[in-house]
Amino acid sequence: MANIQEALTALTAFLTSEQVTVNETVRELHGRDESYHGQQLPDVVVFPETAEQVSRIMKVSKQFQVPVIPFGLGSSLEGHVIPVTGGITIDFSLMDKVLAVYEKDFLVKVQPGVTRTQLNKELKKYGLFFSVDPGADATLGGMVATNASGTTSVKYGVMRDQVRDLEVVLADGTIIHTGSMAAKSSSGLHLNGLFTGSEGTLGCFTEMTLRVYGIPEHVTAARASFPTVNDAVEAVVSILQAGIPVARVELVDEESIRQANKFSDTAYPEKPALFLEFHGNEAGLKQDVEFMEEIVHGHGCEEIEFETDNAARNRLWEARHNLAYAYIHGYPGKKMMVTDVCLPISALAGAVRHARENLNTLGLTGGIVGHVGDGNFHTLLMMDMNDAVEVAKAQEFNERIVLYALERGGTCTGEHGVGIGKQKYQLQEHGAALQVMEKIKQALDPDNLLNPYKNVKPETKGAVL
Amino acid sequence: MANIQEALTALTAFLTSEQVTVNETVRELHGRDESYHGQQLPDVVVFPETAEQVSRIMKVSKQFQVPVIPFGLGSSLEGHVIPVTGGITIDFSLMDKVLAVYEKDFLVKVQPGVTRTQLNKELKKYGLFFSVDPGADATLGGMVATNASGTTSVKYGVMRDQVRDLEVVLADGTIIHTGSMAAKSSSGLHLNGLFTGSEGTLGCFTEMTLRVYGIPEHVTAARASFPTVNDAVEAVVSILQAGIPVARVELVDEESIRQANKFSDTAYPEKPALFLEFHGNEAGLKQDVEFMEEIVHGHGCEEIEFETDNAARNRLWEARHNLAYAYIHGYPGKKMMVTDVCLPISALAGAVRHARENLNTLGLTGGIVGHVGDGNFHTLLMMDMNDAVEVAKAQEFNERIVLYALERGGTCTGEHGVGIGKQKYQLQEHGAALQVMEKIKQALDPDNLLNPYKNVKPETKGAVL
Repeated sequence: MANIQEALTALTAFLTSEQVTVNETVRELHGRDESYHGQQLPDVVVFPETAEQVSRIMKVSKQFQVPVIPFGLGSSLEGHVIPVTGGITIDFSLMDKVLAVYEKDFLVKVQPGVTRTQLNKELKKYGLFFSVDPGADATLGGMVATNASGTTSVKYGVMRDQVRDLEVVLADGTIIHTGSMAAKSSSGLHLNGLFTGSEGTLGCFTEMTLRVYGIPEHVTAARASFPTVNDAVEAVVSILQAGIPVARVELVDEESIRQANKFSDTAYPEKPALFLEFHGNEAGLKQDVEFMEEIVHGHGCEEIEFETDNAARNRLWEARHNLAYAYIHGYPGKKMMVTDVCLPISALAGAVRHARENLNTLGLTGGIVGHVGDGNFHTLLMMDMNDAVEVAKAQEFNERIVLYALERGGTCTGEHGVGIGKQKYQLQEHGAALQVMEKIKQALDPDNLLNPYKNVKPETKGAVL
Repeated sequence: MANIQEALTALTAFLTSEQVTVNETVRELHGRDESYHGQQLPDVVVFPETAEQVSRIMKVSKQFQVPVIPFGLGSSLEGHVIPVTGGITIDFSLMDKVLAVYEKDFLVKVQPGVTRTQLNKELKKYGLFFSVDPGADATLGGMVATNASGTTSVKYGVMRDQVRDLEVVLADGTIIHTGSMAAKSSSGLHLNGLFTGSEGTLGCFTEMTLRVYGIPEHVTAARASFPTVNDAVEAVVSILQAGIPVARVELVDEESIRQANKFSDTAYPEKPALFLEFHGNEAGLKQDVEFMEEIVHGHGCEEIEFETDNAARNRLWEARHNLAYAYIHGYPGKKMMVTDVCLPISALAGAVRHARENLNTLGLTGGIVGHVGDGNFHTLLMMDMNDAVEVAKAQEFNERIVLYALERGGTCTGEHGVGIGKQKYQLQEHGAALQVMEKIKQALDPDNLLNPYKNVKPETKGAVL
């Protein structure tokens, strides 16, 4: 691309030689994420340090009509950061400061390159924590971009629920703020929600004001084993119906428990299980947990083990969080595909059964885990990318899972986002609303330069899997 | 307007004579809301029964370039439903069905004309309730349109947090769905959030899927009196800091207690007070309430009274909800202006002090109440609309309150919305982001026919106060 050269010259006018590179190794690192989607390299990678620099990068992008792709740590799961038409990747790793902790307001102001464990380390000093926990130690910028969620969302909500304000650099370089520090507002249109989950297609975040919480007074975790996955899911429905304010409730199927035991050196019974956590005051927690115990036993729970001390609790959640790595480690040479549907809770047990049946029918290798309190579950599928039949089967499986969910009022992606992988389901999921999304994209990025061919675009150009 | 006649003819082609009217009394009822903003009449009022009819109304609006203004019950507080340039008011009172209760999914599907008490009556049969409680018995359509909130938002969130899906008729008559029945989604752009709070400027809602909650096992309410408003606000900050999950915490100042006692026939001590409520299990609640009691006494609380039985609790909340009417009743012939800022909680005590000082300095009649757990408070100002000096003073007061909040990271409206009254602060609050809102409005309503000159438009045409 001729204009890449011109763009590069323009970039070097205000970025140091450390901040802009065409080095192939660096470009390769920015050409993929943690998904199975094929690698494609950016032409340039830049490392801005300020919003002002990001704004100037956007102006270069516009002037020379070169795409820009924001990049956090590359932990996305649907190819979000892959530069499908090349361009300038903006790596936010130098913008990694916790700018302010507003203790009394339960807010923090961070730069997009801050990771969630980095933030939690800082917050601990104040007796606070950041609630969203997607497993991976993603950057907060990436988490806002995909509207990430995870194990604690059933109680604390998803990323969008935490966003109070975003500083966003738009396609023309304008810097805006999408919200304020107020806990609620009915002023103007809700840009916080629109930019959260926009996957870099409407602007780049340079500062984020996020909600945080007091570390709960008491925490109890438990691991409950069930005869079948169905029993476990039905137990979750009953727990929610009973109004027990569960803070985490994760389904881990038999196969996934086996992988966890191997990888994390645990010795959990190799049965479908729920990993649970409760937050509250001592007396309330005790009553909640007793009630929960009654309920799980009513659903055939065979063994329940409580983890009240910190170490055992951390081991439990580490085992859960390491599951993706456990599978990857257990199947060397294979790539992982992760399904991510979310359904109304009444349809969840059927959906999980349907997933297991289809795994078996198609003869695929994988396990089912999920944030079942939200109706969101994942199938972790291992596939050999050189085996066209296996890849096709995995794609077919993913499609069956998505269509099952869409037919029952669900969504094709509960938390991973659209990226490249879920574009083909956008029209079916959103219908005529997709045109509204396209009009918004068109209004805010008329030249289609911001992470092009991701999220709302129904058709993807560029060669991808 | 010549094209009104043509529009009228087109409307009568598919609406019965009961569904379309130019009767002056009916038009007058649709020319005002509960605010001080001046009345202006629509040319026609229509009463559709289906989304299909709303779609055809939109097509008529577009064909003859006649504005449409959605109307629930007219309880808006910033002139939202006033047809500033005339046009067709769409009254949703015939679309008042609770269409489905999805008990297991904690969801309901309703038409926009359903009121919140109507919904709660229906939900009670299932042990469920709808959480958002703005005081007035507004329609749910209106509550979504303004992103309403109220006393329980500190625990359950605002309207936007309850919206899972909206059926929306767009300016060109297209019917879309903005979401799904899934508890969370990272698919596409977040239209649920964008349309919630859009005040009829982007489309009309014809069906809404909303989140509901199980009626809490135990509820305790309390009324705590303090020597000063400042002590009461500081107590709230401490309660939140302590992590006590308060379900309601309302500030009612001395003057407002006096009005309540007169109007609601209560005999509460005429001191600044907090009205509190806690939801939970029995043991947890007891511990929370004990902790709360310690805290309020540490802030000079002089008297705390608990209302555990239903009747006393209802009386307490009725007295709170009737406060606006208490003032109106107490000052016959005067109109009410209500301020509605929301600030970071750390700035709240100062803001309430500032409001009281300015009330006194300007010699205005009014009281302060507020959803202080969210940092949102209202000043209820009574003014004689024939007294130009008093009206100017009230406007001046409102402006001082807004600017104080904006300078401290707050918003000009926490829950009432922009309507006509808060447009002049939009640029100051949103800065360059206002252009993004305008671009979205332009993209979705290019002819500016949907509730024109409300919400995001920085300048209002048409004669208003």
